[in-house]
Amino acid sequence: MEIQTFVAQSVGRWRSQRSSHNLAFQHSEEVRSVIEITAVPATDASVAGLCEAYDIDLATAVSPFHMAWEGESDWDENERLSGSCLLVPVPEPLNPNQGKLLRSAGYAETVPAVGHYRFTEEGMFVLVTAYDRAAAEERIWFGTPHLRFRVSQIRTSDGKGVLTASFASEIRAEASPPEVNPPTGA
Amino acid sequence: MEIQTFVAQSVGRWRSQRSSHNLAFQHSEEVRSVIEITAVPATDASVAGLCEAYDIDLATAVSPFHMAWEGESDWDENERLSGSCLLVPVPEPLNPNQGKLLRSAGYAETVPAVGHYRFTEEGMFVLVTAYDRAAAEERIWFGTPHLRFRVSQIRTSDGKGVLTASFASEIRAEASPPEVNPPTGA
Repeated sequence: MEIQTFVAQSVGRWRSQRSSHNLAFQHSEEVRSVIEITAVPATDASVAGLCEAYDIDLATAVSPFHMAWEGESDWDENERLSGSCLLVPVPEPLNPNQGKLLRSAGYAETVPAVGHYRFTEEGMFVLVTAYDRAAAEERIWFGTPHLRFRVSQIRTSDGKGVLTASFASEIRAEASPPEVNPPTGA
Repeated sequence: MEIQTFVAQSVGRWRSQRSSHNLAFQHSEEVRSVIEITAVPATDASVAGLCEAYDIDLATAVSPFHMAWEGESDWDENERLSGSCLLVPVPEPLNPNQGKLLRSAGYAETVPAVGHYRFTEEGMFVLVTAYDRAAAEERIWFGTPHLRFRVSQIRTSDGKGVLTASFASEIRAEASPPEVNPPTGA
């Protein structure tokens, strides 16, 4: 699997249902959101800007994309969770199944970050991002062309402890799910 | 990865926190349970019985184990979810990274079932089980030696629709997590 294919499959509007597990407290939080993923032309000035910030040759960037999300948590229904960021994949020249993923500020942390991605032989996307005091691992794969799964874990930076783990089911908004009303009383 | 290693890593007592997503309704259910996984001697009569039921040569069975669980759902706190079953892996002779998994009644469905497992090159265990009208795919991997993740999806048997998806974080009960009290008011 190469990043071009993965980005092409991901472009679109997704309704995301995410359960986040706080492992120490055994607490769970539910977040519902809408995520919009759009392709960005490599000629866009924002792509050149992000490459420059990481000293990356713009010519090696592949399939840049933009992600925007807006959601709400069951912990605080009045809190709107929203944000957006630009992501720029930079595959390794000799092994295009893996590479760097540059990310502008706005995603999880409010600072820009560079992560390392790889695809497993099944085509599962695995992204590892090191922050100052923690490391995040994110796994994304498709159940069907219209259903994405995403499992994230945040570890302490020494790699020993996993602090939180979350699971998102993401359904393509255009692909209409069965037209049903929520069950009453449930 | 071979099944012996995976079973050995899984033996123990686990506190499981599972979020189940109903994809059509976008509903979520939380189940907390304790899961006990114990090795079973291949000489145990129950192992021979299950092998015989599936016309499998007992000599090809590897690392049989027993699983028991007891939990409760946030949908109905008075309902006790409990059960147990015997599982018998039967690796393929020429490719021990994959094989059959025989299962006595008691797990998800109340009938015995035979699933097919394989390990990815990362060591993720993937089990596919076909039922009459649905198919289940389960992925299990370790975040640390004391933390297992489990993602399950149930599809219609034509493979087109995913009906439910669930995510479990399972912490080894002996490995004490930080001694904390649940936060008040959350």
